[in-house]
Amino acid sequence: MFISFEGIDGSGKSTQARRLAQSLREGGAEVVLTREPGGSPGAEEIRKLLVEGGGERWSPETELLLFTAARRDHVERLIRPALARKATVITDRFADSSRVYQGLARAENRLLVEDLHRLVIGIEPDLTFVIDIAPDISLARGTLRGGAEDRFESLGLEFQQRLRRGFLDLAAELPDRLRIIDGSGTEDEVAARVLAALP
Amino acid sequence: MFISFEGIDGSGKSTQARRLAQSLREGGAEVVLTREPGGSPGAEEIRKLLVEGGGERWSPETELLLFTAARRDHVERLIRPALARKATVITDRFADSSRVYQGLARAENRLLVEDLHRLVIGIEPDLTFVIDIAPDISLARGTLRGGAEDRFESLGLEFQQRLRRGFLDLAAELPDRLRIIDGSGTEDEVAARVLAALP
Ligand SMILES: Nc1ncnc2c1ncn2[C@@H]1O[C@H](COP(=O)(O)OP(=O)(O)O)[C@@H](O)[C@H]1O
Ligand SMILES: Nc1ncnc2c1ncn2[C@@H]1O[C@H](COP(=O)(O)OP(=O)(O)O)[C@@H](O)[C@H]1O
Ligand SMILES: [Mg+2]
Ligand SMILES: [Mg+2]
Repeated sequence: MFISFEGIDGSGKSTQARRLAQSLREGGAEVVLTREPGGSPGAEEIRKLLVEGGGERWSPETELLLFTAARRDHVERLIRPALARKATVITDRFADSSRVYQGLARAENRLLVEDLHRLVIGIEPDLTFVIDIAPDISLARGTLRGGAEDRFESLGLEFQQRLRRGFLDLAAELPDRLRIIDGSGTEDEVAARVLAALP
Repeated sequence: MFISFEGIDGSGKSTQARRLAQSLREGGAEVVLTREPGGSPGAEEIRKLLVEGGGERWSPETELLLFTAARRDHVERLIRPALARKATVITDRFADSSRVYQGLARAENRLLVEDLHRLVIGIEPDLTFVIDIAPDISLARGTLRGGAEDRFESLGLEFQQRLRRGFLDLAAELPDRLRIIDGSGTEDEVAARVLAALP
């Protein structure tokens, strides 16, 4: 089973991915908890190029190629081997983030995301939880963190609103794989919604 | 005019690219001399990921994606702007290196190189000089340099022979764009051959 968590910054993806991993481990499963960009040593090095530096550091296309390179490394060195030995893989973001972020940056890049995915990634999660939350709540949570990885968070509320819409539209397009989870309320409340949405 | 130099390690690409730039500048042209991987600030940072580390650091596909990301940055931030202002661009390696190196690493990746090129690069040089030389001569020249960028050089003579064959095959496939230049003899002799092959 391959599960991804998606959603805007501060929606609670990392928190809920960790909680779900914990729940499934308590049930006795081997769970590999990972994240993107990054997740494997090579991909983490590419991640540094992506999350540091100003918003103009890379064009949308170069950024997408770097994300795709990192994802390829992540898939072939961590995700596929884990799935091959029947572990459950839970990833904090995957290709849907590229679909939404890169598609927003330049609408025609949505096609490029799909072409690159088909060419070099191939795999999709069995199930994707979209943690949905109003950006003003999520932004308040996100800013609690600080740190150098602020390239995306610095994009502001209006951009986060467009991202939220992008994730909801994607969930409407792909209702079999994507499940929208209400991200408001306490961590426990959201975690219960995630468990209830498992098949 | 967009010109690339290609060929195996130590064949004399960098030397001859520099010499040609000098000659054309003496003729009054604005010449932008550049190289791959690298050539723009972002691409040079990606280059570091590519040239450092062991041969197993990246799979052929991830490596190709990183090369493509670097090339995209190089093209959009250096090459296209230079060509737009009518400068001559001379690059020490370009997409033909990907065709030959990545195609050798895994034959079916030759198609992937072309797909990625079509999707995100598009541009080809007007003219490509393939500096052709016996690998034993070139390897002897190459080893004079030392340094940390030894990932490709360390691959050995037999591999360089396959690369040489790859460049010659590519030149046979694309005779209108690629010109084979005999790389043996002195720098002056090779430089004269390059000038004589200019249109
Ligand atoms: N349900 C919740 N209520 C309040 N704060 C939360 C909740 N879920 C997560 N947080 C906090 O909000 C911040 C962002 O959560 P995080 O899981 O890192 O989001 P994401 O990974 O989607 O950016 C963190 O500081 C986290 O502890
Ligand atoms: N025609 C030549 N004869 C002898 N040495 C040469 C010649 N051309 C280049 N060299 C030397 O060989 C080495 C490799 O040349 P270089 O231009 O860096 O090759 P490449 O860029 O193809 O790897 C350098 O030390 C260079 O000075
Ligand atoms: Mg997170
Ligand atoms: Mg050189």
